[in-house]
Amino acid sequence: MADINSPVEIGVTTGPIRGSRKVYVGARTGSGIRVAMREIDLEGGEPSVRVYDTSGPYTDPEALIDINAGLAPIRRDWIMARGDVEDYAGREVKPEDNGQLGPDRSGGVPGFPNVVKRPLRAKAGMNVTQMHYARRGIITPEMEYVAERENLGREIAADLIRDGESWGAEIPDVITPEFVRSEVARGRAIIPSNINHPESEPMAIGRNFLVKINANIGNSAVASDVAQEVDKMVWATRWGADTIMDLSTGRNIHDTREWIIRNSPVPIGTVPIYQALEKVGGIAEDLTWEIFRDTLIEQAEQGVDYFTIHAGVRLPYIPMTARRVTGIVSRGGSIMAKWCLAHHKESFLYEHFDEITEIMKAYDIAYSLGDGLRPGSIADANDEAQFAELYTLGELTKRAWEQDVQVMIEGPGHVPMHKIKQNMEKQLEACGEAPFYTLGPLVTDIAPGYDHITSGIGAAQIGWYGTAMLCYVTPKEHLGLPDRDDVKVGVVTYKLAAHAADLAKGHPAAQVRDDALSKARFEFRWRDQFNLSLDPETAEQYHDQTLPAEGAKSAHFCSMCGPKFCSMKITQEVRDFAAKQNAAPETFLAAEDAEKGMAEMSEKFREIGGQLYVGAPDREHD
Amino acid sequence: MADINSPVEIGVTTGPIRGSRKVYVGARTGSGIRVAMREIDLEGGEPSVRVYDTSGPYTDPEALIDINAGLAPIRRDWIMARGDVEDYAGREVKPEDNGQLGPDRSGGVPGFPNVVKRPLRAKAGMNVTQMHYARRGIITPEMEYVAERENLGREIAADLIRDGESWGAEIPDVITPEFVRSEVARGRAIIPSNINHPESEPMAIGRNFLVKINANIGNSAVASDVAQEVDKMVWATRWGADTIMDLSTGRNIHDTREWIIRNSPVPIGTVPIYQALEKVGGIAEDLTWEIFRDTLIEQAEQGVDYFTIHAGVRLPYIPMTARRVTGIVSRGGSIMAKWCLAHHKESFLYEHFDEITEIMKAYDIAYSLGDGLRPGSIADANDEAQFAELYTLGELTKRAWEQDVQVMIEGPGHVPMHKIKQNMEKQLEACGEAPFYTLGPLVTDIAPGYDHITSGIGAAQIGWYGTAMLCYVTPKEHLGLPDRDDVKVGVVTYKLAAHAADLAKGHPAAQVRDDALSKARFEFRWRDQFNLSLDPETAEQYHDQTLPAEGAKSAHFCSMCGPKFCSMKITQEVRDFAAKQNAAPETFLAAEDAEKGMAEMSEKFREIGGQLYVGAPDREHD
Repeated sequence: MADINSPVEIGVTTGPIRGSRKVYVGARTGSGIRVAMREIDLEGGEPSVRVYDTSGPYTDPEALIDINAGLAPIRRDWIMARGDVEDYAGREVKPEDNGQLGPDRSGGVPGFPNVVKRPLRAKAGMNVTQMHYARRGIITPEMEYVAERENLGREIAADLIRDGESWGAEIPDVITPEFVRSEVARGRAIIPSNINHPESEPMAIGRNFLVKINANIGNSAVASDVAQEVDKMVWATRWGADTIMDLSTGRNIHDTREWIIRNSPVPIGTVPIYQALEKVGGIAEDLTWEIFRDTLIEQAEQGVDYFTIHAGVRLPYIPMTARRVTGIVSRGGSIMAKWCLAHHKESFLYEHFDEITEIMKAYDIAYSLGDGLRPGSIADANDEAQFAELYTLGELTKRAWEQDVQVMIEGPGHVPMHKIKQNMEKQLEACGEAPFYTLGPLVTDIAPGYDHITSGIGAAQIGWYGTAMLCYVTPKEHLGLPDRDDVKVGVVTYKLAAHAADLAKGHPAAQVRDDALSKARFEFRWRDQFNLSLDPETAEQYHDQTLPAEGAKSAHFCSMCGPKFCSMKITQEVRDFAAKQNAAPETFLAAEDAEKGMAEMSEKFREIGGQLYVGAPDREHD
Repeated sequence: MADINSPVEIGVTTGPIRGSRKVYVGARTGSGIRVAMREIDLEGGEPSVRVYDTSGPYTDPEALIDINAGLAPIRRDWIMARGDVEDYAGREVKPEDNGQLGPDRSGGVPGFPNVVKRPLRAKAGMNVTQMHYARRGIITPEMEYVAERENLGREIAADLIRDGESWGAEIPDVITPEFVRSEVARGRAIIPSNINHPESEPMAIGRNFLVKINANIGNSAVASDVAQEVDKMVWATRWGADTIMDLSTGRNIHDTREWIIRNSPVPIGTVPIYQALEKVGGIAEDLTWEIFRDTLIEQAEQGVDYFTIHAGVRLPYIPMTARRVTGIVSRGGSIMAKWCLAHHKESFLYEHFDEITEIMKAYDIAYSLGDGLRPGSIADANDEAQFAELYTLGELTKRAWEQDVQVMIEGPGHVPMHKIKQNMEKQLEACGEAPFYTLGPLVTDIAPGYDHITSGIGAAQIGWYGTAMLCYVTPKEHLGLPDRDDVKVGVVTYKLAAHAADLAKGHPAAQVRDDALSKARFEFRWRDQFNLSLDPETAEQYHDQTLPAEGAKSAHFCSMCGPKFCSMKITQEVRDFAAKQNAAPETFLAAEDAEKGMAEMSEKFREIGGQLYVGAPDREHD
């Protein structure tokens, strides 16, 4: 980083995820849209398992990765074809955008070398949001991509046995582009897709789609740098992050963000008030609407896909936090609270909300209406301040929708399990079914160091109840800035929580992966078990700690029980025996027949020396 | 371990848990019983927080620990005073008890040097179970100890605000010895306390008490040894394991268990069929009732407090598993299934159940009725085999209760979230409210390497619904034998899940610790925050990765946000400002007054330069 003018040395992880193969599935409409996914090939004649893939070109061995060039702008043709945008001379980047108040850029980092000189915006009088198109009955290529992506490219209704409790969600057997359009039109789903972020692979956030997860990255004044943040973005998406929020609060915010967006295959969210605060040297009272507005434009031109706006932290609500154990734990919320009290004025975000919306609609930036008054401790959960803000967010949702701007609603926080459902119910009621996007919630405060788990418990539950996206928490929560290992652990934890929610909701294809992995486990196809898991490398590493030899990968036991005690091995022997008797599985289901069949079996079992079971034709799961 | 006759070099972790002080609280009855707990002292004039403590004398700096001598037999006087037991010439230890079929003990490990020569058993015609005493209206010292322990030694009803959803549990504000007796008498709680394990600190497992957790240790044929297993027991109880199961399946099972029980402050459970299988060289078909019975006596004399008995794996149920994806995943269940099929006979455990009960009642060993047919994959959850066994366990519960033998019921397994509640409801209905003791459940199969988390999610939920004890799962589940690091991670994960369940159930004092920690967090008392957490060392280590300097322990920020962006610091400033206006918190709660108060505040805020908040007398949480 020393020489501003030299290319940046940023190392990111590339190459396939172990056991997976990148595929591009053509949309069934024949439009030519190709949707990125990955497939896990299995041994023993088992069909490959296709899984949702957020990792972008980085895991495609055919792709040429050049961080200095950025990813290919795959959506650009679709955007231009709509004929409703124009390029223009963008805003000049100012030194304060990077936290340097001097006239030069000393102390900064190299800027991204291929910045788009003329960003796009809507032509005068036009509205370029996905919601606007959806409400006019238009199915965009983004909606098509989403439909294919959510279906994983195959017809799944045929051999489908739905089983779940979705609490009133409406998850169809097959996702059609028309269904996507309909959900976006009514605001029940969003497709975050700024026209200036054409590199992103379209995705949907909504209750009737797969539960999504977000990973936070970004530096602070105390830690991290550009190379680390770009690496974290690639690393997080490799392991499954559906969106990334860049929450940088240190220096070089503008340049760091440019590197991230240009290289990100997933939507990027930010909290613009952070950068605005940096521009006024950290003095909240010196914030102004004008500085904030300018920051919105700056970030819109770069391609930020959604903004967290704490417009619900209203002046009269701030006193409601006076008795709280942990006050206001949201950075943005506390900043706005300070500003409001200092000026004795209503929040400028609330007052200028419609003007913010005008900006959002010119670029198709979605609102993430911030939960500035979320509870930061069990004691503060579901209190007056929290729900007062929620109802204001509902009011603002309707105002945003009047201009066809996409909205999602942020949520808690710290909530004991018995209070989680109420959060979902109130949000559905207050916010017109706009997607809910929660931070956990953590179900107890007593385990810093393990808050990915305390929050994973709450996240799985609230995802089941209908929350559309879960913002991850890492083991470092409350203690410090996460490093890349923490990022991975946080992502995998939230992937498993989101998947558990999909299963419980009865999402049609969710159980395919569980069944494939369990079958591999039962049949001692160890490599398949690892490859099907969310983190193949860790699974294999743990196994190899006690049984590293290559032969162990097809052994009918592991070190937990050893060969004599492996229940799966013994079960196999039991089934072998039954099958060698040519007893069809149906025979097994009548207890009286079982008696008779058992007598025969017992005799035979002894005859053949008590060792049984490989590859019987009648066995169900061969 | 080389020389059988030399004392064993077993190193265990001793010394206080960082930030905690061992205390012994006298029972309020004045009986002289002293209950072990620990207290966490805080800074800033905050009251100490007392927490439940499973770690035994190992964390008492005053205690002399000698693994070769074992712990003090604290319950012995209580047992003898009841006048209903006799000592007798115990069973001879045979070479096959340690898996050596030769005439000498070569290849073994040193035996525990202070084995009790003459074990205890009930006098002829007597019944020595806690349930028997309870049903006769007797409050034993064990029940007194439990009551004091569950209350944490203080009257908590006074300033109590109950808040929770307990799904019909009956958790009193204060636990009295009479309440304990009543719960044990009706079978809704158990106190596992073999008369030959007088070293254990009494504890209760029941829906109306704190949710408990179990940690599994034990070697396998492939890994681990005596020293490691004793160390794991001490390590697991240090971090919070309420009971330990010794699931050894390798060699030296008898000797390993003796070392563990003599040194364990918590109840010990086993699965006797494992050792029985070792005695017949791993050939399930060669098991006999006589060998099993002899193993029960052997383990009863050593002091095992509860036995897992898979008496519900009945011959007619085995065919019900034919279509399962993962068959029978229980070691004991698969062993019994193999035996039943080979002999074409009903399970000898089922057939001889009443004789097993006769043995249990002579020593006060509790049943843990095993879930041999639990589901080992999402696909198999809540199937016919699983519930057929559950209803048999209910039948067996009633038979055991006819002889006043204590019972708990084991449960699943792998269960998607929407099927968890049904498990609790069926178990309550089938088993007469006997305590439920589940393994997780895991809510998805797709994350080996993270199964402490997939199962922690299910465990927290089923604990909330009424499960009395949660059997931990470590990161190594499905992959290999856990090491001590895995044991700690598993224990802490299950402690937080159990505590989250207590909170959600509205257990009266559960939230005390969350509130104390959150207050410490808000006030930047970093050391207090670490000391109050479940794992103080890890919390501090994570913090110090980015801010190691001593001064950072009182800094009003951490590296997550840095000094300008810390929301808690900003909240403090906001409150300081308001307090300096002498505005009482109540003023804050009227929005119209807030307007007026705010105007004044705003003026003052600017006057004093916008920096506010330390130690204002009106601030609620000073």
